[in-house]
Amino acid sequence: MTKYCHKDKYSHFEVISLLIIRAAIRSISFTINEEKMYKVSILTVGDEICIGQIVNSNASWIASSVTTLGAEVLTHVSVRDNAAEMKQALTNLINISDFVIITGGLGPTHDDITKPVLVEYFNDELEFHNESYENVLAFLRQRKIEPTERNRQIAFLPKTCTVLRNSVGTAPGMLFNFAGKGIAALPGVPSEMKSIMTSSVLPIIAQNIKLSAQEVVLYKTLQTTGIPESILAEKIGDVNEFLNGGSLAFLPSYKGVRLRIGVSGLDFDNCRKELDRIERHIKDRAGEYIFAVTEKSLVAIVGELLAFNKMTIAVAESCTGGLLGAEFTSIAGSSEYFIGGVIAYSNAIKERILGVSPKTLDDFGAVSEETAREMAENVRLRFASDIGVSITGIAGPGGGTEEKPVGTVWIGYSDNEQTLALNYNLGNDRNTNREKAVGNALDLLYKKLKIKQ
Amino acid sequence: MTKYCHKDKYSHFEVISLLIIRAAIRSISFTINEEKMYKVSILTVGDEICIGQIVNSNASWIASSVTTLGAEVLTHVSVRDNAAEMKQALTNLINISDFVIITGGLGPTHDDITKPVLVEYFNDELEFHNESYENVLAFLRQRKIEPTERNRQIAFLPKTCTVLRNSVGTAPGMLFNFAGKGIAALPGVPSEMKSIMTSSVLPIIAQNIKLSAQEVVLYKTLQTTGIPESILAEKIGDVNEFLNGGSLAFLPSYKGVRLRIGVSGLDFDNCRKELDRIERHIKDRAGEYIFAVTEKSLVAIVGELLAFNKMTIAVAESCTGGLLGAEFTSIAGSSEYFIGGVIAYSNAIKERILGVSPKTLDDFGAVSEETAREMAENVRLRFASDIGVSITGIAGPGGGTEEKPVGTVWIGYSDNEQTLALNYNLGNDRNTNREKAVGNALDLLYKKLKIKQ
Repeated sequence: MTKYCHKDKYSHFEVISLLIIRAAIRSISFTINEEKMYKVSILTVGDEICIGQIVNSNASWIASSVTTLGAEVLTHVSVRDNAAEMKQALTNLINISDFVIITGGLGPTHDDITKPVLVEYFNDELEFHNESYENVLAFLRQRKIEPTERNRQIAFLPKTCTVLRNSVGTAPGMLFNFAGKGIAALPGVPSEMKSIMTSSVLPIIAQNIKLSAQEVVLYKTLQTTGIPESILAEKIGDVNEFLNGGSLAFLPSYKGVRLRIGVSGLDFDNCRKELDRIERHIKDRAGEYIFAVTEKSLVAIVGELLAFNKMTIAVAESCTGGLLGAEFTSIAGSSEYFIGGVIAYSNAIKERILGVSPKTLDDFGAVSEETAREMAENVRLRFASDIGVSITGIAGPGGGTEEKPVGTVWIGYSDNEQTLALNYNLGNDRNTNREKAVGNALDLLYKKLKIKQ
Repeated sequence: MTKYCHKDKYSHFEVISLLIIRAAIRSISFTINEEKMYKVSILTVGDEICIGQIVNSNASWIASSVTTLGAEVLTHVSVRDNAAEMKQALTNLINISDFVIITGGLGPTHDDITKPVLVEYFNDELEFHNESYENVLAFLRQRKIEPTERNRQIAFLPKTCTVLRNSVGTAPGMLFNFAGKGIAALPGVPSEMKSIMTSSVLPIIAQNIKLSAQEVVLYKTLQTTGIPESILAEKIGDVNEFLNGGSLAFLPSYKGVRLRIGVSGLDFDNCRKELDRIERHIKDRAGEYIFAVTEKSLVAIVGELLAFNKMTIAVAESCTGGLLGAEFTSIAGSSEYFIGGVIAYSNAIKERILGVSPKTLDDFGAVSEETAREMAENVRLRFASDIGVSITGIAGPGGGTEEKPVGTVWIGYSDNEQTLALNYNLGNDRNTNREKAVGNALDLLYKKLKIKQ
C-alpha cells in the first residue's frame, strides 16, 4: 500500500531542535568514520535547464536548505528529458550519496518523464492514489477549473513510494527507499518544490542525519561591502596560517564579497568554536568592511539601521528605473521605513515631479553631481522623508560620450544635515550597471547610517 | 609555446554565416551518423554553487549560447572545490562530449583550484605568459590598483593550452585539446565568462560544428501569456498526432508558459520547415495566447507596441515598489516610451504625490478597485503620459485579512478612453506575488495595446 507523508508546517524551531539533539549524540561519539558526512546530491531533469532556457534556481534553493541542516551537498547534475541519460545519472548519484533529490518532469504534459522512468528504474508499477486525486480535485475546484483526464493521470503513483503531499499544486512528490539510500522526486515548479521540501523532505533528511550520527559540517558567512576581492585577500593574509583544517571561500558579487568559513568535525560545539575563532581572526584584519555575519542582505541591514534610528527614506531613480525601490520593498516589513519614490526616467519628469531645475539639467546634464544632489534633496523634501537617495547614470549600451562613458553613475544622498553625490564608473553591461548602482547606493547608505549609531 | 587566441568582437552575423555554411555542407551530405550532433557539457566548479549560496546563472547562459549555434547540451554538472571530484567529473564529461566548458575556480584566491587541477590532469606545467601579465597590469592601472604577487600568479599558465584573453578582467581563459575533444576553462565571474565565451569559445565551437558536419538541432520558442499550462496542453491536443519526430516542451513560469519546439536532422532547411509546420499547427489551436515566437520578453513586446503606437507610459506602484518600472527600464531604448512613475508605498505618498483621495483610501482601502483606478488615472494625468498603469496589493507575509487575503492584487489601467482595474489572487509568497503582479500588469497592457493596432 502506498504510504502517505504530510506535515503542514515544519518550523525553524524543529530544525534547530534536531540539530541540538544531533549535537548531543555527537558529543558522546568518538568513532571517526571515513565516510563522515551525510551526503546529498541534486538531479534536475528537463531540456529547458540543459539548453539554458531557464536558470536552475531550484538546485541552489535545495542545496542551501540541505546545507543548513548540516548535510554536505556533493554535486548538482542536470540532464535532458531523456530516460537513458536520467537513469545513468541516477545510478551515478545513488552510488556516491546517501540521499538524492530529483526535481522536474512531474507535470501534466507528455514531456514529463520522471514518473515513468522511476517506475521502470525501481521495477515498480502505478496504482491509483485516492487522496492525491482528492487533492487535485480540491485544487482545481478552488481555481474553478474543470478536471480533465490529464489531471486524473497525476493520481496514478508508484506502489512502493511514500507519497509526499503537494499543498500548493497538483503533482505530489514521491519518496523511494533503495539499498538504504533515500530518493525523493519533486515537481519542478519552484513554489511546489519548496512546499514539499519544507513539509516532508527536509524533516526526513534531518532525521536521517540524526540517526546516522555522522560528522557535522558548519558554515558561517561574513559579508563585506566596499572592498574588491584581491585587496580583501591581501588584508586577510595567508589562510594556511589560521584555518587549521577549516575552509575559507571568497564569493564576489555585484553586492560585495562574501567570505564563507567552513568547519567539519564530530562535535557540534567544537565546530562552532572553530568557526568563531576564524571569524575573530578575519574581523581583526578586515572588520570595517563586514556588514553582516549572517546571510542577511545589505538592503535588510540598511533597513534595520533605518528602523533602529526611526528614520524614513525615499528614492529618486533614473537609470535604475525602480530597481532600488524594488530592492527595499523585497523585504517584508519595509513599510516601517520605506515610504516611496519617483522613477524619473525622462528629464521632463525630473523637472516636473522632482523639481530639478531646468538650468541644472542644461548646464550639467542629467548625469551629473548637481542633478544627483537635487534629486536626492528634492525627493526627501517632497516626500517628507528623513533621507533621500538618488541614482542617475548612463546604463548603456547607448548614451555614452567621451566625457561620460557608459557606466558613469552619480549617487546622491541627502538628510537634514548634508546633501552630497558620489561618482562611480561601473562598466559596460546595462543590467550589470544597474545592479551595481543599487549595490553602491546601499553601500553609501550603510556607511552614512552606521555613523549615526 | 603557449598560443594566444583573441577576437574582440564576435558578431551575430558571423554566427549566422557559419550556420548557413554548415547548412550548405549538410544539404549535400547523406551519411547518417549514429552520434549525430555536436555534444557540449558544462562543468561548474565551486563550493558556493554546491552549497547553494549562489544560483548557477553561468550554466544557463552558456547552454543557451551553445544551443543557438546548433550544438546539443547534454548535461550540466556542478562540483565542489575538490580536486578528486573535479577530475572524476571531467573524465565523465570528456567521455560523453565533444567539448567541455568549465567555469569557476580561476580567481586570485587560494580556494581557486581549477588551474592546478588542469595542469595535473593534462600532465602539463605552468609557464609565465607575458601578454597575460601585460593585460593584468593594464587592467589594474585603469582602476588605480597596485599590482601584488597574487596578481602576478595569474599570468602563470599551462604550457600546452591556448590562452583566451580576458578583456574585462584579469584571469584569462584556457583552451585544451585532449584526445580530439576541446576543453575550455573560464573564470566564474559572469561578465568575464561571457566576454571570453563571445570572443573565443563560441567561434571555436561554431567552427568545430562546421568541420565535423554533424547533425543540426533547431529550436523555436512560442511564448504564451494569460493561459495555464494544463489548459494550453488541452487546446494543443495529442502531440503524437503532429510532432512527427520533433519535440515539444511546456515551460511554465510566472510570466506565462513557453512552448519550445525542437527538430533535428541532417538538413538545416528541412529542419526549419518542420519547425514552421509544427508552429502553424500550434498557432491554429492556441494562437490568441502567443505573444512572441522569439525569446523576446513580454516587456520588450509591450515596449515595441508602445513605440509603434507612439505612446508613452507611466507607472504607479505600491506592493511591487518599483519592480514594474525596473522591468520596463531593463530594456535598452525604453526611454522612447517609458517616462517614469511613482513608488507610492505608504498611503501618505498615495495621497500627496499621486493625489488619491483620502476618502477613497478610507472607504475602500489601499488595496481596492477604486484606489487602483485613481492611481492609474492620476499618474497618467500628472506625468502627462498616454497610459497609466498601477499595482496595489497585499504581498505578504503580513497584512492579509479574511476579506483581502495575502496575494490579493488590483491592477489599474488608464488611457484617454478608459480607466479600469482588475483583481487577481496570486498566492502566499511575497516575492512570487510581486513577480506575478508585474507579469499580470504586462499581460493586461499587452491585451490593451494589441487591440489598438
